[in-house]
Amino acid sequence: MTAASVRTAAGDPTGLHRVLDDATVLPQAAQHLDTRKELWPDEVRVRVERLNLDAASFRQLERKHAGHGDRVRDEVLEIIETRGKMQNPETGSGGMLIGTVEEVGPESALGLAVGDRVATLVSLTLTPLVIEDGLARWDGRGEQVPADGYAILFGRSVAARLPDDLPHDLALAVMDVCGAPALTHRVVEQYTGGFETGLGGPPQPPEGPVVAVIGGAGKSGSLSLAAARNAGARRTVGVVPHEREAALLREAEIADVVVVADARDPIALRDAVEGAGGPADVTIVCVDVPGCEGGAILATAPRGTVVFFSMATSFSAAALGAEGLAADVTMLVGNGYVPSHAAYALDVLRDNAGVRGLFEGRL
Amino acid sequence: MTAASVRTAAGDPTGLHRVLDDATVLPQAAQHLDTRKELWPDEVRVRVERLNLDAASFRQLERKHAGHGDRVRDEVLEIIETRGKMQNPETGSGGMLIGTVEEVGPESALGLAVGDRVATLVSLTLTPLVIEDGLARWDGRGEQVPADGYAILFGRSVAARLPDDLPHDLALAVMDVCGAPALTHRVVEQYTGGFETGLGGPPQPPEGPVVAVIGGAGKSGSLSLAAARNAGARRTVGVVPHEREAALLREAEIADVVVVADARDPIALRDAVEGAGGPADVTIVCVDVPGCEGGAILATAPRGTVVFFSMATSFSAAALGAEGLAADVTMLVGNGYVPSHAAYALDVLRDNAGVRGLFEGRL
Repeated sequence: MTAASVRTAAGDPTGLHRVLDDATVLPQAAQHLDTRKELWPDEVRVRVERLNLDAASFRQLERKHAGHGDRVRDEVLEIIETRGKMQNPETGSGGMLIGTVEEVGPESALGLAVGDRVATLVSLTLTPLVIEDGLARWDGRGEQVPADGYAILFGRSVAARLPDDLPHDLALAVMDVCGAPALTHRVVEQYTGGFETGLGGPPQPPEGPVVAVIGGAGKSGSLSLAAARNAGARRTVGVVPHEREAALLREAEIADVVVVADARDPIALRDAVEGAGGPADVTIVCVDVPGCEGGAILATAPRGTVVFFSMATSFSAAALGAEGLAADVTMLVGNGYVPSHAAYALDVLRDNAGVRGLFEGRL
Repeated sequence: MTAASVRTAAGDPTGLHRVLDDATVLPQAAQHLDTRKELWPDEVRVRVERLNLDAASFRQLERKHAGHGDRVRDEVLEIIETRGKMQNPETGSGGMLIGTVEEVGPESALGLAVGDRVATLVSLTLTPLVIEDGLARWDGRGEQVPADGYAILFGRSVAARLPDDLPHDLALAVMDVCGAPALTHRVVEQYTGGFETGLGGPPQPPEGPVVAVIGGAGKSGSLSLAAARNAGARRTVGVVPHEREAALLREAEIADVVVVADARDPIALRDAVEGAGGPADVTIVCVDVPGCEGGAILATAPRGTVVFFSMATSFSAAALGAEGLAADVTMLVGNGYVPSHAAYALDVLRDNAGVRGLFEGRL
C-alpha cells in the first residue's frame, strides 16, 4: 500500500492515484482500483442506474456459465468487488454505464453539474465502481444491467449528457460506438480535398474516395457508412456476411452498394469490394470476428487507409500481413475518442432514418 | 487437397495457390504451404544461403530448449518441414533470408535476374521454404542460420538486391527493420508543411514537430531518429531504458536529447518526454516489450501521431487506452512495407556515421 499512499498526496488526471497495484500502471491495466467515495479535486462521482456490458464480455460469461443467469450475475459482482472495476479477465473488455451526477469536484473540467443524467464514454475497464444493490434487479440474461451504486470519473475522462429527444436505450447504443463515425468522417475527409496534399499526403481521387465498410449493417458500421457519405465519399460499399443483413442494409438506403462476403476470406472480400466499384480508398473494419486483416488490406487501394475498429483485430496480423502483401496502405488503430464524437454520432442518427431504423431493429 | 488442386489452375499474386489448408487463408495465416520447386509464371525461386531468424522467435526457442543448440536446430527443421515455411508457432514470427536468384518466372514483376544476390523483405512466415542440408552448418546458438535450400517469392513479394558497398551482415540488419525509417519519414513530413492541411490534417508546428523515439538506440529506433531529422523534425528525443544505452546514443549524436525512462511506466515515459521538450507531435515506438501503449499515448500531444513498430503492441490496449485517456491521437500500425524502404534505410546508414556505429556495435 506504500506506493498508493504516496500517490494519494496528489491526484493525476489519468486516475493514477486510484491504482492500488505495486507497479505504476494506468487504471485500465491495473488489477485493483481504490473505490473510495471521497473525490480528488478533479473527479466526479456518478450514481449508477445501469451498466451496459460489452457484448464480447457478456457472451463469454454466458457461454462459461451455460446460460445460468444467477451464476453470470455472481461472477460480475465478484469481478467488480475484487477489482474495483468491471473488466472481464478473459476478454479484457468492460462496457459503459449511465447514471446521474452526484458530486463534482471543484477542479473537474468535464463540464458536468449535479443532477445531469450522463453516459460514461470511457470504458468500465478503468472506472472505479461500487455496486450497492447486489444487482438484485438483473437476471443475468442480458447485457443491460440495472444497478444501484456509484462510479468515479477522473479529470481526464469523457461523459456525455443523455439527450432529451431520444430514448435512453437508443442514445446509449449510439454512444457505445460513437468513436467510429467521427474517425471515419475525419479519415474520409482527408481524401476529399478537405485539405490540400503534397508529397506526404494521401492521393485525392477527383470525385471523392470509395469507402468500404466491413460489417456495414451493424451499429458502428451503419453509422460509419452514413458518416462516410457525409464526409464526401464518392461511393460507399457496405459488406455484410449474409443475405438477411444485405436486405436490411439495402432497405436502410445508407450504402450505394451492398455486397455479401465472408470477411475472413481475404480473396472473397477483395473480389467483392472490387466488384462493387473498388478497390476502396478507405476501408473501415467493424466486424468483431478475428481474421479480417488480410482481406481488408487486399480490398484497399495503394496509399489507401484501413481503419480497424474491431477489438478482434490482431496487431501482428495487420502489420505482417501488409508487409507480406507489399501493400502500401495506412493502417489506423480505431481510437474510440475523437472530440465531440457523441454529439456527432447522435446527429447522424437523428438525420438518417435508415441508420435509426437499423438501430431500433436491434434494441 | 481438392481446394488446392482447384487453385493450382491459376496462380494468385498473394501466393494463395500454394496454401494447402482447407480454409481460404493467405500464406501467412496458413498451416501448410506447397513447396514444390516448379514455379507459377509470376514466381521467383531463390537458392538460400542464410536465414535470419526473428529475434523474438529465436529467444523463445532458446529459452524453451535451455540453450541446447542441437534441440533448437531440430525444432527449426521440424517447423520448416511440417509447415513448408519458418513460422514459430509460439511467437507467430519468422525472419528473413538471403540467397541468390535461381529461376525467374516469365511473368514475375519483381525486377530480379538469375544470379542476383538478394534479401527477402517479406516475412519467412509466408515464404515457401525447403532446407536441403539439414542445417548442418548451424550450431543452433544464434539467429543467423547458414543454410542450403530454396525459397519461393510470389508475384506480390518484396526482395532487394544486396548492395556492393556494405558488408552483407550490416545490409541485412538494416533491411530487417527498413520499414520503420521510411514510414517515420512519411509521418514526420506531414507535420512539417510537406503538405498544406486544412480541417482534416494534423496541426503544423511552425518550426517542425517534436519527435520522440522510444527505444532510440536500437536498430529500428536509431534509423527512425535519423529519418525524423531528415524529414524536418524540430527536435528529436531518444528514449532508452538505461544509462549504458543513453551513453551509446549520445555518442552517436543522432538525437537532440537523450532521456532514460522505463517505457512500461506510463507516467515516467510521459514525464521524461515532457522534460525533454515534449509532448511529442510524433511518437515512434520501437521497443519490443509489452505494455508501452499507455505511455506512448500520454507522451504525445493532442492531434499528434503514435506509430507502433513493436510486435509486442496490443491492439486493444492501444485502442481502449487512448479512449480511456480521452486522447485525440492518431495511432498507426507500423506497416513494414513502404515503397523504396530498403534503399532509403541503406542511404540513412551510409550518410550517418552515428547510425552506422550503433549497427556495427551490434553485429
